[in-house]
Amino acid sequence: MRQAVALHHASRLVNHGPTVLVTTRHAGRRNIMAAAWSMPVEFTPPRIAVVVDKKTFTSDLLKASDCFALSLPVPALADLTYRVGSESGRDLADGRDKFARHGIATFDGPVLQLPWVDGCCAWLELRRIAEPHSETAYDTVFGEVVSAQADDRVFAQGRWSFRDDNAALHTLHHLGGGSFAVPSRVVQGRLLEAGAS
Amino acid sequence: MRQAVALHHASRLVNHGPTVLVTTRHAGRRNIMAAAWSMPVEFTPPRIAVVVDKKTFTSDLLKASDCFALSLPVPALADLTYRVGSESGRDLADGRDKFARHGIATFDGPVLQLPWVDGCCAWLELRRIAEPHSETAYDTVFGEVVSAQADDRVFAQGRWSFRDDNAALHTLHHLGGGSFAVPSRVVQGRLLEAGAS
Repeated sequence: MRQAVALHHASRLVNHGPTVLVTTRHAGRRNIMAAAWSMPVEFTPPRIAVVVDKKTFTSDLLKASDCFALSLPVPALADLTYRVGSESGRDLADGRDKFARHGIATFDGPVLQLPWVDGCCAWLELRRIAEPHSETAYDTVFGEVVSAQADDRVFAQGRWSFRDDNAALHTLHHLGGGSFAVPSRVVQGRLLEAGAS
Repeated sequence: MRQAVALHHASRLVNHGPTVLVTTRHAGRRNIMAAAWSMPVEFTPPRIAVVVDKKTFTSDLLKASDCFALSLPVPALADLTYRVGSESGRDLADGRDKFARHGIATFDGPVLQLPWVDGCCAWLELRRIAEPHSETAYDTVFGEVVSAQADDRVFAQGRWSFRDDNAALHTLHHLGGGSFAVPSRVVQGRLLEAGAS
C-alpha cells in the first residue's frame, strides 16, 4: 500500500544510493529519464542533490518549472529504467513523449501534480533550489522534498526493510551498461566499545 | 588482488551508492569517518561529491590539506563503519586518533599518501575542488579522483561483478541506524524497442 512518508524521513528513501526516475512537466510537455547519481544532503529540511546533464530535455523542463519528481524503480522495471536513461525525449520521431511511447502509467503527486511512475516502491516531489553554479559546473541540481510516499510493504516508520518476501519491491543500483545491483541482503552494524572489537 | 583502476573508470566505483570511509591527514593528524552520502558527478575527469558535515574534524583536515581519500567497506567492516560514523576524532579522551583507538590498519595511497583502510574492496584519492558555497550551504564537497584501486575479484575492466563467490567483498549501503543493505543480487536491463515491451 502506498503511504505518505513524513518529510523528516524523506531523505532516507535515497540514503542507500538507488537509481531514480526523474520526471518533469512544464507548459504541457513532460519527460522522464533515469539518474544513477543522487544523494541526500540534509535530513531536515529534506534536501537531495541529483545529477542531471544540462544538455537534457529533463534539465530544460526542470529549470523552466522549478520542480521535479523522483520515482524509485524496482527489478521488474529494469528494462524500462535502462531504456529511458538511454534516449532523449526532446524530439521523438513519432511525436509522442516517452511516457506514451513506452506505455508508462503515471499518477500525480499531491503537492506539485508532477507525474509519479506506477509500479515503483517510493516517490518524491521536490522544488528546485536554484544553484546556477553547481548546475553549470557539475550538472548538480539541489532540491527540497515537499512530498514523499512509499510502499509500506518495504518502507515503514522511516526505514527500508528489504526481505525475501518483498524482493519485488527492492530498489535498483546502477552498475553500468544496464546492469543493476539489488540490495537484497542486510547486515546490522553494532556499536562496539573501543578495544572490544 | 588490489589493482589500479583506470581514472576514466573511477566514478563507477561509487556509481551504485555505497557507503564510504572518508580519511584525511594534515600536519601530523589524521581522521576517519563514514559517509553514506556521496555520488559521482562526472566520469571524465572523474569527479565525486560527498557530504561532510562542516562541523566535523574530517572537514577541518580536508579543507586544510585540500585532499581526502575514500575506502569502500565490506560486510565484515559493518561494525567499524557504524562506529567511526558515530563518534568524532577531534578530541578523543584517550588522546589517540580513531585509527589507533579501533585498531584500524591502513596503507598509503600512491599519489597523495593518504591513509586507505585495509580490508576494503576499493579505494580512491581525491583532490578537493574548493567550492565554498556548496560546502557551506549543503556540506557538499567536490573532489577530483587522482588515483583509484580495487580488489579485482569484485571490480575488473571498469565494472563491479557481485556474485555469491565474492560476497565478502560486496559494498555496504546505509539504510539508517547501522543497518546496511548489501547489493548481492544483480538484474540486467535490456534495451527493448518501443512497443516491444
